[in-house]
Order: sequence, then structure tokens, then C-alpha cells
Amino acid sequence: MILDRINKENDIKSISPDEYALLAQEIRTFLIKNISVNGGHLGPNLGAVELTMALHLSLNLPEDKIIFDVGHQSYTHKILTGRKDRFGTLRKYGGISGFPKRNESECDAFNTGHSSTSISAGLGFVKARDLKGEKHTIVSVIGDGALTGGMAYEALNNAAKLESNFIIILNDNNMSISENVGGISRYLQAIRTFTGYQDFKVALQKKLLRMPKGKQVVDSLRRYKSSIKQLFVPGMFFEDMGITYLGPIDGHDIRGMMRLILEARRIKHTVLIHVCTKKGRGYAPAERHPARFHGTEPFDIETGLPRKNKGKATYSDVFSTVMISLAAKNENVVAITAAMPDGTGLKRFQNLYPDRFFDVGIAEEHAVTFAAGLAAGGMIPIVAIYSSFLQRAFDQILHDVCIQKLHVVFCLDRAGIVGADGETHQGIFDLSYLSSMPNMHILAPKNKWELSDMLKYAVSFDGPIAIRYPRGRAYDGLPEYREPIQYGKSEALYEEEGIQLFAAGSMVETAVTVRNSLKEKGLSCALYNARSIKPIDGEMIKNASERGSLIVTMEENVLSGGYGEKVRDYMAEQNISTPIINIGIADEYVEHGSVDILKKNLGIDAASIERRILEAVKYHG
Amino acid sequence: MILDRINKENDIKSISPDEYALLAQEIRTFLIKNISVNGGHLGPNLGAVELTMALHLSLNLPEDKIIFDVGHQSYTHKILTGRKDRFGTLRKYGGISGFPKRNESECDAFNTGHSSTSISAGLGFVKARDLKGEKHTIVSVIGDGALTGGMAYEALNNAAKLESNFIIILNDNNMSISENVGGISRYLQAIRTFTGYQDFKVALQKKLLRMPKGKQVVDSLRRYKSSIKQLFVPGMFFEDMGITYLGPIDGHDIRGMMRLILEARRIKHTVLIHVCTKKGRGYAPAERHPARFHGTEPFDIETGLPRKNKGKATYSDVFSTVMISLAAKNENVVAITAAMPDGTGLKRFQNLYPDRFFDVGIAEEHAVTFAAGLAAGGMIPIVAIYSSFLQRAFDQILHDVCIQKLHVVFCLDRAGIVGADGETHQGIFDLSYLSSMPNMHILAPKNKWELSDMLKYAVSFDGPIAIRYPRGRAYDGLPEYREPIQYGKSEALYEEEGIQLFAAGSMVETAVTVRNSLKEKGLSCALYNARSIKPIDGEMIKNASERGSLIVTMEENVLSGGYGEKVRDYMAEQNISTPIINIGIADEYVEHGSVDILKKNLGIDAASIERRILEAVKYHG
Repeated sequence: MILDRINKENDIKSISPDEYALLAQEIRTFLIKNISVNGGHLGPNLGAVELTMALHLSLNLPEDKIIFDVGHQSYTHKILTGRKDRFGTLRKYGGISGFPKRNESECDAFNTGHSSTSISAGLGFVKARDLKGEKHTIVSVIGDGALTGGMAYEALNNAAKLESNFIIILNDNNMSISENVGGISRYLQAIRTFTGYQDFKVALQKKLLRMPKGKQVVDSLRRYKSSIKQLFVPGMFFEDMGITYLGPIDGHDIRGMMRLILEARRIKHTVLIHVCTKKGRGYAPAERHPARFHGTEPFDIETGLPRKNKGKATYSDVFSTVMISLAAKNENVVAITAAMPDGTGLKRFQNLYPDRFFDVGIAEEHAVTFAAGLAAGGMIPIVAIYSSFLQRAFDQILHDVCIQKLHVVFCLDRAGIVGADGETHQGIFDLSYLSSMPNMHILAPKNKWELSDMLKYAVSFDGPIAIRYPRGRAYDGLPEYREPIQYGKSEALYEEEGIQLFAAGSMVETAVTVRNSLKEKGLSCALYNARSIKPIDGEMIKNASERGSLIVTMEENVLSGGYGEKVRDYMAEQNISTPIINIGIADEYVEHGSVDILKKNLGIDAASIERRILEAVKYHG
Repeated sequence: MILDRINKENDIKSISPDEYALLAQEIRTFLIKNISVNGGHLGPNLGAVELTMALHLSLNLPEDKIIFDVGHQSYTHKILTGRKDRFGTLRKYGGISGFPKRNESECDAFNTGHSSTSISAGLGFVKARDLKGEKHTIVSVIGDGALTGGMAYEALNNAAKLESNFIIILNDNNMSISENVGGISRYLQAIRTFTGYQDFKVALQKKLLRMPKGKQVVDSLRRYKSSIKQLFVPGMFFEDMGITYLGPIDGHDIRGMMRLILEARRIKHTVLIHVCTKKGRGYAPAERHPARFHGTEPFDIETGLPRKNKGKATYSDVFSTVMISLAAKNENVVAITAAMPDGTGLKRFQNLYPDRFFDVGIAEEHAVTFAAGLAAGGMIPIVAIYSSFLQRAFDQILHDVCIQKLHVVFCLDRAGIVGADGETHQGIFDLSYLSSMPNMHILAPKNKWELSDMLKYAVSFDGPIAIRYPRGRAYDGLPEYREPIQYGKSEALYEEEGIQLFAAGSMVETAVTVRNSLKEKGLSCALYNARSIKPIDGEMIKNASERGSLIVTMEENVLSGGYGEKVRDYMAEQNISTPIINIGIADEYVEHGSVDILKKNLGIDAASIERRILEAVKYHG
């Protein structure tokens, strides 16, 4: 095995060029084998094997910096930088992360997770290098998807002014682009990259009109510009900004990419290398089903099929089904996703109502203000974005939707602990950031039927409204409790004296376990489904406090700014002195690992909560 | 006066074309006169007089929709839609807003205030119109500055796919652009806008290579493409995306613009009309000093000089001065602004340290992640962005800076009530949104010396840190209290029993007044400067609670998620039962008006606070 000889960064350089192809194959086999057992991002990594090898062969790590946008394509980078042997721990608790982490290796220059940040960060590294008089190379690797995010454009706009070297690699896995450009672009590439190109470009401007046929060329061009442009200029978009465009190049041609990287390093401003890769390359099922193998659960290598059956319906499944029926009943209902038609469950809506479905790309900011425009125009937009990604649109929700009290429905999937994706993806801030926005109404369902009821309620509500629900399996307990949703009202599940549990969303399931256990110990325990997080249900709090000996709020969100604080505030305002415990996530980021382990560590699992209650009851009781 | 004949929308249409120029002049005189008395955005409005007239002459309001980006250029629109007589109330409490407001007029299609939202909102209106089978015209008016914001690009990227009419007007007041393009672009404009242009474009692609000299043209082009492109293609950036580009056109030529708008309405996809205007047009001082007259205080029309002397130093002035000394002492200090070198006070830093100064444009998201990259590369970036604009970078602070604990210093100017700009610009959410982010350290200075001390402390601190301070005059009281800043510590100003005031930042000045008044009434009252908002000073809270009879937290921020909630939480955790009042802003947006009036209405002025305390003391005492 060639891979056996690669145990740390730069080891790859001792391998002969003849061995590149074989090494790429070994890495692919390694990736497929490992991801088939533990799950992870397969497609993006299979596509970026040669690109990552070319970067490692061309650069000196850790002096040179590679910043992977999103970072889900950094597995080969991890393999080549001494983390091969820990690969079995990938995305597991205590193991290596599925994203670059500075605390994991000196070769991980910058942590990523959310999209479209790499050019901004890379430009920061470039300016720091230049101000310090250092000479290393900085490369940001960004996918064509991530380039739909506005901040990537803000960064390009700034990178265009640069007067020193900065390399952006556009990892483009949309094959139509490389087919469209073909031979002409290869020719353009040749004249664009020779040394002195910049001077040449300036000189040309003058020369052209002095040429024998120059005037004629110019005149013809005046009339035919638009179509001619389409023939030659794949990188016009970047060149117009002032960024040198190189490519497109086959992203599986290691030596070709190395040549371009070498040329790019000579250019004293920002260079974009357009690399065309195939997502899932080298594993037939992943090439055939790029969406399914983007991020995958464990699967059978032979068949490509998941190892486990899908099992019970997820909240996304429920959302998917209800959206169809809402759309059928109300023609004003439209749906918006930011590049997640599959993940959010909107695919079926898209198929049935293509005119009323909008995938805006990785562009959460636009998604929200676009929704505000739709609402102002009389539609009922339902914006489905994962909790942690909606953070991108904080200002748009606050400034464009809530000030105008527009009827936009936000559906926050993946709210709470998400598990293996780790700290960048935990959806644990939404209750805080949405709560501080005036006019926002926030709901969280206890089970699958309640998500359905809340969606219907949200469509008939008139104003900004958010529904947050967790990743994965939808709770199907408590089917008998289906009190109609009312503005600002919680739902009493079990009313009695003693301990009063106020559980928000996913915590209702946990609270049921806690309550059963407390009841077994002979303790009296009430349980309220705190379905309306904002506004909170003051009447319920007051009644429960009078009846109870201890209030316990439970939420899968940071405590700071969350539901528990609001209950506490209300109680203080009302001079209610019943003791209260707030269960939620402490003021820290939550690493990756299984949801069960993480919840236990955070003290938000049933056993930990019960322990805290028992301590408190002894103390107060 | 022609203006006398214009009392509501569409009245302008009854005016003869010969009168256009005179009306424009009357509007300018009206604007200059009114803004010279009350202040407001002068430059952008003087530049957009003819553009707004052309829109009103071409469209039918309120059926057709105009969405003004930022909205500070909407004064002429307000004059033309029945709000001329209320112009004396502009930006005053209870008066008309300096920005478009749906609740002010049916002709204001969408509220704006922050930059770069108009294309997203416009596209929402377009989709709503099309789904409803309506036929009206939708126009988004965006400045060249606003186009540096990423979400405008996200929106363009989506608008490019549109198959129905949507007009974007690029109001470009950078004169260099129109000079660069000149005659050729006018020619291009003619061929681009005739009906059937789309089919023509497609046909050309095939025709070209069949032409006698086609091959030759193609060959020449292959070699000279780059320079030729510069000659002909002002709008390539947009055309590359799939948006039809019209222009550039003189933005003071009303009939010319009307012709282009008419042509644009015929095109069945997104059209961008590039309009070149002159900021401050028609008022010499504003043409000469566009930055100063962008938004201005009352001024003398004759001289252009401010009516009031500048008076005491503002916090921005203090920031400006301290930044220079910090930069001189530490060469790693760099400064970042998002298009606000003047407003933030960084102009002097820029002049003295141009290499260490970065104006990234209206691009707060990029600003923050760029800073993260700089910090990861070893620099100490100081990011100066107004509180309400930093909302745009919520995710970047949380995801790119705080997870990695990078040493980025955030300076939030205009934190708290800002006054005349109103609800979109009030900086009243930052304590909440920053507090919920793990690893963030938040400070607020009580006076000008403390801002200086905090900046020095922040540069020596190692991690994410934010300093928030209000708009306007820096408090110069309490000069004798200058205890060194310590992590997580507040400053005891007056320690005694009785009422315990915990005042954050600007509220210290208010608290001094409150305390003096209470003392006069014979009440004992302690005052703490809660300079560290996060982490809060538990020890101080504990000691003060033991000593005191009533805790009063005071902050210029929404209560939800703010400082008071954190104090309350801490007390609850520690089982401290001293009564507590949280003074802050209720859960609602704050309109425009003078800071004094607004604070009084919100109950956060000294008199209101004292009243609440007196009530509470009676109650508890």
C-alpha cells in the first residue's frame, strides 16, 4: 500500500508521479470502506481526492494554508496529514471531526462548517501574511454551490483589489460547465497564465486599434458581442471583477492541477482556478445518486443501500407530507429552501408545485427577504431552513420580516442537538435569537401530530411565526393529546401538585420519561407542553406555580436568552417565588458525537434531569 | 409653483414635459430648505430627484411597486405621494420617517433601512404578482454602494432565472463609471433593447461562424479577448448572470430614463437599468462634500456650514483618537469598517495607516470572517460596525470568530437608541445576540475615558471581545472613577446599603441622575458600573444583594436576552431573593424621534426609572 507510507503532512511528496493514480485509488477505497461503516460525507470527498493530492503535492503544510469552504470535503486532507489511523473515530464522540478543526491539526488553518466563508477567511490570512512580510501560499477551496452565498461574492469583490498572491480554487462538480467550454478555454488558459500576462493585457488595449484589421474586428464585435462572449469567456464573471481566471481544468488530473497551481503562485493578485470534479467519483452508486451520497448513513458497499432500514418517520417526513396538503388547500402557500430540497423534505412539494417552490441556492439572507417580498405581495411563504443555517439571516428576519409583521412561516429543521456534524451545526441558538425579535411568534411541537397542527395554524396565523423541530425520528408518543393550537397557550398534559415540568418541543418526550420515573418514586409531577415559546403562557405559569413546589423548564437550546429565562422573568415580574430549575445547554459550543452521548454530557437527558430534580426536591422539600 | 399642483401620487403626470426641469428645481429647493432646518439625508435625495420623477411619470402608484434600497433616497418619492405638507415633521417623533414605511403610505411598497435588500424583496413581489396573474410593474432602486452587499448578489443570482419582467435600477453616483463607457455603450444600448433581442442573441451564436469573416473574427478574438472586452462591455457582469443590462444613462435626463423604463417593461425577464447620478446635485456644498452631506445635521444654506458647533467629543471621536495611539504602539493592530470610515471615526486611522485599514464596502458578513482570518493569521483586527448593522454578521461572529475563540475586537458604535433614523437603526439588540454566543466577552463604557481603557484592554485580551457605546456625545462625568478593567468585573462607584443600581454603559450617566435624586429624598443608593456585560460579575451581584434592599439593572437594550435577565438568572441560581427590577426596552421596535423623547416613552429616562424605583421601594420597603 502506498498509503502506508503517508503518515504525516508532506509525506506524499516522496511518492513518485507514477504512483499518484494508485494512491488516489487507495484513498477512495479507504474513504468508501470507512464511510460505509460510520457514515459521513462521501460524494464531496470522493470528488476531491485528486484536487487535495495536487494541493498537498504543491504546497508546504502547515506553513502554507488551505481553507476548505464548508469543510465536508476535507477527509483526504485529514488522511494526508496524520489522521489516517484515527479515521475510524470520524464524527464520533471524542474522535476526529468531519470538518477542519484548528485544535485537531496544525494543518487545519481555519474551522469551517457553514458555507461561503473560505474566501473571506483566506483574504484575512493573505493580509496578515503580507503585513508580516511572510511568503507562504494561501489557498481557499470553494465549491460551486458555496459560491451562491452572498458573502463569497463580498469576499471576491474585496479580493479583486488585492496586489499580492491569493489562490481560490473553484471546485466545480457541475459537469455541464466543463462541457460547455471545452477546447477554446484551454487555449485561453495558455495565453492567460504566461508570465507577464498583466502587461500584455494592458498593451493589447492600445495595439488592437493599430492593427491592420483592428478596426474591422472592433466593428464586427460591436454588433456580435453578446454571442461571441458566450463562445470564449468562461471566467468573464471573475475577470470583470479583476480576478485572474485559470481553467477550467479536469479535477482528476493531478499533474495538470499542479501545473496550474504553480503558475497561479506567480501571479501577484487573486487567481481563481476553475477545477471540474465529479461528485462521488469512483464509486458507482455515489456517481448515480450524488444527492443521497452527499452525506450518508452507513451503507452496504456492494449495493450502495443503507445498512439500516429507514425506520420511523422523521420530522422532515412529516413536514413534507403536511406541506403537500397545505399547498393543495391554499394556493397562496409557497415554499422556499436554501439549497436543501431533499434535507428539508420539500422535494415532493417541488415536484407537485414547481411554480410555487423556490430553491434560492445557499443564500439564506436572500431567502428570508425574498419571503418578505412574497408575503408583502400577498403570498404565504414557508421558509424551511435548518436552525443553524438560519443564523445567517438573523438581520433579515429582524429587519425585513418582523418590523413589518409580515406573514412569513419559518420552519427550523435540525433544531437542537444534531450529533455527528458537531459544533457548527448544532441548532441550539434559535430560541434565543428569535425570542429577542419583537413580533415573532415561536412554536415547538412535542410530536409528529403537533408539527402537523402547528403548520396548519401557522398558515392561518397573520404575522411572523417560527416552528422549530429536531433532526431525525419524530416522536409518536402522546397521540391522545391534541388540543388545538392557541396563540400563546401551552398544553396541559398531566396536571397535579408537586413538581411542575414545562417542556419545550423535543423535551416533552424526555419529560415523559422523567415524569414516569418520578411517579414511580412516589413523587407528584405535572407536565406541560410549552408549545408556545414566544409568547410564553403566563396563565399556565401562574397556575402551575401556585399548585407546585418546583418549576422545571426544559429546552434543547442554550439557556442564555432561551425559554427558561423568559419563564423566570415572568415569575419575577409577577412576584412568584416558587423555586425554579432551568434545564438547557450551558454557555458553550457542543462538539460532535451521538445525540445520546451529547445530551448526557450536557445534562439534558432524562437521567440527568431527574437527578437534578431529586436533589432540588430534597433541598426545597 | 408647479409643486403646488402635486398633492398625491400620479398628480405629476398632469404636468407638461416642459415643466419637468422646473419641478426638479423646485423639489431640490424644497429638499434643501427642509433638510437645512431639520437635518436628514441630503446628498442621496438631491441625486435622485429626476430618477424618482421619471419613475413616477412612468408608473402607476400604488399598483406598481417601487422598492428603494436603504430608503434614504425616498424623500422625493414622499413629496410626490402626498407627504409634502408633512415634510416639516420628517424624522421627528410622530412625524414621517426618513425611510419608506408601509404604514405611512400605500405607495411605500416595502420598508427598508439596512442595505442591499431591495432586489430580494422586489423578486418576492414579482413572484407574487405572477402567481396571482397580476400585471403591474415592480422596480427595485439600488445604489452602487448597496450592490457591494452579498445579499444583493444572492438576489441577482436568483433574478437571473426569472422569465417575467422585473426592473432593477442601479442608481450609480460614481461618475467614473459613466465616463469610462461613453458612446459605445449608448450604441450597445440601442441594439440590446429592441423587441426580439433575446431571439436575436441566440441566432447570432450560430450565424457568426457562418459569416464570411466569421472565422477570422473568432480567431482574432481568441487572442485579443481581454482587451476588447474592456472596450464594449460595461454590463458584462450582469449579462453574464443572465440579466439584460440597459445603460448607462444620465440620471438627470428624465425623458431619457422614461424611454428606458418603457423599453425595460417590455422585456420578459430581469432588466437592470444603469443610471448615473450625481450625489448632492444642485447644491454646491453637497456636490463638493458628498460624504458630509450624505446625512447631515441642520446647516446654513448660504455657507453649507452646520448650524450648531460640534460641541463635545462623541464616542466616535474618542474611538478615532485611541485607535491612532493603539496602532502606533502595536503594529499588529488593524482596522476594518464596512463602508463607514467617517461615521465610525476610522478616517484618521486610514490616513495614517492605509495598509492596515480595510474598508470592505457594505459587507458586514465578509468584514467579520475576514477579521477572523486576520486574527488566525496573527493580527489583531478591530471591527468597527454600528450595532444594528452588525446584526448582518450574527452567524459569522458566532460561527467564525467565537467557536475558534479568535481575538477579534468588535466596536459597536450607535448602540442603544439612535433617534431620528428610527426602528431599523436602533442598536438595541446587540447585548442579546452577543450574549447568547459562547466565548464572547462584552463590555460597555460609562464615559469617554473608559472607552479608551476598554480599547486598550481589548487589544491585550485574547479572544472574541465586543465594546458597545452609544451614538453622539461621550459622557465626561465621573472622571475620578477609572479602576483598571478586569475580566468579568464591574466597577463600584458608590457603595452603600439600600437600592443597588447596576447600570450598563450609557445608563451609568442616567443612573447618576437617578441616584442623586434618590439621595435628595433621603434614600440610600449604591451604584455599580456594570462594565462587563458578559460575563456578569457574580461577586458584585452577591455582595450588593446582601447589602441591598432592591436591585435595579439598567440597560439600553431589549430586556429579552439582555443584561438584566442574566443578573436575574444568576440570582436565581444562587438563591438570592433580593427584589429586582430590570430596566430596559420592552419587546417592541422603537420608532424615530429625538433620543430624549424616545427614552422617556420607553421608560428608560432618569425620571421614569426613579418613579419605578420609588413605587417598588414603597412596595417592598
